[in-house]
Amino acid sequence: MAEFPLVPGSTIGILGGGQLGRMLALAAARLGFDVVIQDPEEASPAGRVAARQIVATYDDRWALKRLAEACDVVTYEFENVPAGTVAELAALGAVVSPGAKALAAAQDRVAEKSFLAEIGVPTVAFAPVHDSESLAEAVARIGAPSLLKTRREGYDGKGQAWIQRAGEAEAAFDRIGRQAAILEAPADFGRELSVIAARGRDGEIACYPVSENHHEGGVLRRTVAPAKITPATRDQAEAIAAKILTALDYVGVIGVELFELAGGKLLVNEFAPRVHNTGHWTQDGCEVDQFEQHIRAVAGWPLGPTQPHHHVEMTNLLGADVDAWRKLAAEPETRVHLYGKGEARSGRKMGHVNRLRPLRD
Amino acid sequence: MAEFPLVPGSTIGILGGGQLGRMLALAAARLGFDVVIQDPEEASPAGRVAARQIVATYDDRWALKRLAEACDVVTYEFENVPAGTVAELAALGAVVSPGAKALAAAQDRVAEKSFLAEIGVPTVAFAPVHDSESLAEAVARIGAPSLLKTRREGYDGKGQAWIQRAGEAEAAFDRIGRQAAILEAPADFGRELSVIAARGRDGEIACYPVSENHHEGGVLRRTVAPAKITPATRDQAEAIAAKILTALDYVGVIGVELFELAGGKLLVNEFAPRVHNTGHWTQDGCEVDQFEQHIRAVAGWPLGPTQPHHHVEMTNLLGADVDAWRKLAAEPETRVHLYGKGEARSGRKMGHVNRLRPLRD
Repeated sequence: MAEFPLVPGSTIGILGGGQLGRMLALAAARLGFDVVIQDPEEASPAGRVAARQIVATYDDRWALKRLAEACDVVTYEFENVPAGTVAELAALGAVVSPGAKALAAAQDRVAEKSFLAEIGVPTVAFAPVHDSESLAEAVARIGAPSLLKTRREGYDGKGQAWIQRAGEAEAAFDRIGRQAAILEAPADFGRELSVIAARGRDGEIACYPVSENHHEGGVLRRTVAPAKITPATRDQAEAIAAKILTALDYVGVIGVELFELAGGKLLVNEFAPRVHNTGHWTQDGCEVDQFEQHIRAVAGWPLGPTQPHHHVEMTNLLGADVDAWRKLAAEPETRVHLYGKGEARSGRKMGHVNRLRPLRD
Repeated sequence: MAEFPLVPGSTIGILGGGQLGRMLALAAARLGFDVVIQDPEEASPAGRVAARQIVATYDDRWALKRLAEACDVVTYEFENVPAGTVAELAALGAVVSPGAKALAAAQDRVAEKSFLAEIGVPTVAFAPVHDSESLAEAVARIGAPSLLKTRREGYDGKGQAWIQRAGEAEAAFDRIGRQAAILEAPADFGRELSVIAARGRDGEIACYPVSENHHEGGVLRRTVAPAKITPATRDQAEAIAAKILTALDYVGVIGVELFELAGGKLLVNEFAPRVHNTGHWTQDGCEVDQFEQHIRAVAGWPLGPTQPHHHVEMTNLLGADVDAWRKLAAEPETRVHLYGKGEARSGRKMGHVNRLRPLRD
């Protein structure tokens, strides 16, 4: 069993070899840790900057055994890690952080919103849907327009269908493949905000400044941080993050997406039990970024400072956006982050840029 | 032949797998490049964060062929790359940056100081030594006390012997193994400064703020940056760096060590054709650090900005110093950088810390 804090030279396992795993691996290396990536894609973006990659699916028991043996702690870059994977790793004696509780809550939209309701964190009104009868009940309760989402697996706007009038409910259910779903009341929000927070093994909590996020077609396009918010809004966001982290006995970085209502009240849209795209601005805006913060937390190290030293506008480079790298590389205020992905498929996250300006302006 | 600027996804080769190669590899990864390390030590610090390591000595022709085939450009982390290695790589069609001219000048202390004299950059008085006769001549010309150094290979105070009186010259020559040497007049300096500068493929030059350096037992202990210097001293340092870079038709980052004399005049002690320990402060003090700057230069990208956003005190963690990692990790103003080296042998560079404070104080 690992002893915390992990001594430098220890090995951190990461499930998932995409850009988040890659940036986690780079942060772990700065602190003197070795990294092992598990990902079914050979020479994944993260695997190419790690000491080792285990090329295997996440339910490959033999691979999990090798991962558990190699690593002092295991973390992940995506919230859809199968529950069986975490159970298997735990049975093999591996410490997985964040833990099974956080994953279970984050993987199922009904469980997530029920958990938030239990701990007194406000969300939009919602109702579970699994067949025509529960759909009709849900629409009767939540009304229309309302948004039908699959309970599991959807991201970046996938697996969602709007119900504009009650009569469209069955058609919407068909569009999401009649999978187990959640019906959500629309949030009448002015802005989408998020807070990136971390909790250490000792229960210490640290929040980065709240950011303002802009989506296009369901995909994050731009994050501006620190967002212009009132101290009251900041306090609300930090209290929400702290409640979630504490209730989940969480270890690591979490991304909490928020809706800001007209009166200033915040609702939680959803949370991701991992480093988050809306936290990429911290790489160039803070001394310790979300990736190092996550590594510090899972390694049992003290959390780092979260105050910003620059104002940052983060823009995702989606698909062919990355072809502008020559121009972006020449902008003095622009820091370029590219993920080492081969094919710039439409909408694929290929990199991001952080544009900096002084904090006081 | 590589086309510059290198497109993201290109491969950068690095000769040498130590901490400088490791930090170069991390910077290359941020910009979307793949890295191949060549180093005789298996699973070297840099190899463990690179896409691939070729485990081979630097004169292994078959290994160099593989490196040349795999890479769009080759660079190095240490100045003692054999001239034959660079010639072999060039013959194989590889672009090596910085080039053979810079290496030749940096590998031989007589060639280095002769080159500096030729381009009008001041150094201490010096004379070449290769036998008893030239030693006697050198001592007659330079006087005593003076410092006898091997022409090649010495670093961190190794291969050096002081001559306090003319009668000690032969004994000092014995102590350095009667190797080809240089006799140098002592510099009556107040401070040791350095300037980290870069030159791009288009001839663009960028200098980081000058740093003040403190050595112990011939090894760098501490760097403070930006150093408190007059604008005239800054101008001198930048002019010196620019002269060297231009005369060598240099591509990449260079570290130029300077002596500041009582009257404010600067002499060059030596230069290293690579990223430099006295530039580690840029990792947390500047938006683009010396490692990304070097990668940008050798990849043919535009250079990044060099202005600081924090005042930094960099301290090397030598040998058992690294055992203080728990305490260091808990200091909010301290950024920890560890190299993933196993054994903390006495004096071995295991990592460094950058302690930050606001620029204006």
